[in-house]
Amino acid sequence: MKEKVTIVKVGGAVVEDEAKLAQLLKDFSAIPGRKVLVHGGGRRATKVAAQLGIESKMVNGRRITDADMLEVVTMVYGGLVNKNLVAKLQANGVNALGLTGADIDVIRSHKRPIKDGVDFGYVGDVDRADGSKLQTLIEAGITPIMAPLTHDGQGNILNTNADTIASETAKALAPFYDVTLIFSFEKKGVLSNPEDDDSVIPVITRADFNKYVADGTVAGGMIPKLENALSAIDAGVSQVIITLATAIDGKHGTIINA
Amino acid sequence: MKEKVTIVKVGGAVVEDEAKLAQLLKDFSAIPGRKVLVHGGGRRATKVAAQLGIESKMVNGRRITDADMLEVVTMVYGGLVNKNLVAKLQANGVNALGLTGADIDVIRSHKRPIKDGVDFGYVGDVDRADGSKLQTLIEAGITPIMAPLTHDGQGNILNTNADTIASETAKALAPFYDVTLIFSFEKKGVLSNPEDDDSVIPVITRADFNKYVADGTVAGGMIPKLENALSAIDAGVSQVIITLATAIDGKHGTIINA
Repeated sequence: MKEKVTIVKVGGAVVEDEAKLAQLLKDFSAIPGRKVLVHGGGRRATKVAAQLGIESKMVNGRRITDADMLEVVTMVYGGLVNKNLVAKLQANGVNALGLTGADIDVIRSHKRPIKDGVDFGYVGDVDRADGSKLQTLIEAGITPIMAPLTHDGQGNILNTNADTIASETAKALAPFYDVTLIFSFEKKGVLSNPEDDDSVIPVITRADFNKYVADGTVAGGMIPKLENALSAIDAGVSQVIITLATAIDGKHGTIINA
Repeated sequence: MKEKVTIVKVGGAVVEDEAKLAQLLKDFSAIPGRKVLVHGGGRRATKVAAQLGIESKMVNGRRITDADMLEVVTMVYGGLVNKNLVAKLQANGVNALGLTGADIDVIRSHKRPIKDGVDFGYVGDVDRADGSKLQTLIEAGITPIMAPLTHDGQGNILNTNADTIASETAKALAPFYDVTLIFSFEKKGVLSNPEDDDSVIPVITRADFNKYVADGTVAGGMIPKLENALSAIDAGVSQVIITLATAIDGKHGTIINA
């Protein structure tokens, strides 16, 4: 039987709320066994960019990363957010190690091609995550803390969506471990009624997903999140859960099934 | 016989000069065997701070790190400079991994106490560097790339001088390896005549150092650099060399002896 690994993805909204972050880090520290944290930080990047006089441009909720913005996200994701998480987790007794995709070449990507006239700039679409390198760290008792940055192998850092980092990492670890992937966010799970925070759908299969997209129950940013979740299940990840950032105990939220 | 490890410290002036940096990374990549890179980044931090409207305050050439400046150095050293070095070294075939002192708890420090009325703020004086954790990475074929940041074990990042990181790392690795520590900078070595760039002193012993300080040959920022070098030799580091950033082959510069 494979050993368990829990991967938790936490978004920027939680990372920047001191009380929520403290709770999340406490809960994450309490998860028994091997684990990985993947973080965002987009709101903070937007704020630092604004302070530097750099405008944040978005298309369909995705950031356009020009050369100046690449420097900002490299600073904010790889430095400010990642290193503060590492220091705080160390204080909680977690042997945390901050990583971007460039570190020990863990996640290689290529610059997203221009499509439908939209140039996302220095955004990396993942080619491969290296599960065996992560396994080496994990087996040494290390907890990887992964920033949403990858590299192209030619010396360039690229900006990569944190949900994608989480699902690619989960897939890459699936051959070695019994992987649970938890996407944490500001709701209790996938809601059947956006007006009712308690209307959590307990289980979503691919057939459910197609139905919910068709009837509009699932819309906006939840579509790529669920697509990430389903692709992880297809690739051998044991369990995917979408839940509140302060309820990552594996007992709450929406479970995604094949 | 112990295996060789070469530790190279590179300052901010080189990190920010594209041509010099490319040469340094090429030379560093060509160093055979196990190695570690320690980098600064102070000039870039000063520039980013200025862009953010944060004033850089210095006392005796050392930065005062208030809360805002701590965020800047965490971004610039831990993110921008470190991750770009890692990505570029990966492109050169070096299995680079970026580290601050917080990552896997490699370097623990305490906030420098107020002394003689000077409060340096969030500056960390090193308590210990963990050679055995670095050894685990190095033995796994990893090249640590160390940013000048440490942590206090209570969840706080602290700003720490890069020369100190280099010498503490060298000392911590000395029980395990035959360590050569190379401080690279903008001169060919320690000069007997500051007006003559070719007046490199080939060897400096502790007795020489005391004499040179007394007669003024060695002054300013070279004093703490040589003190770091001599303390490393006293702690079992095999060899310390002070040399030009584009001549880190171990055959140039000033050799420091006990």
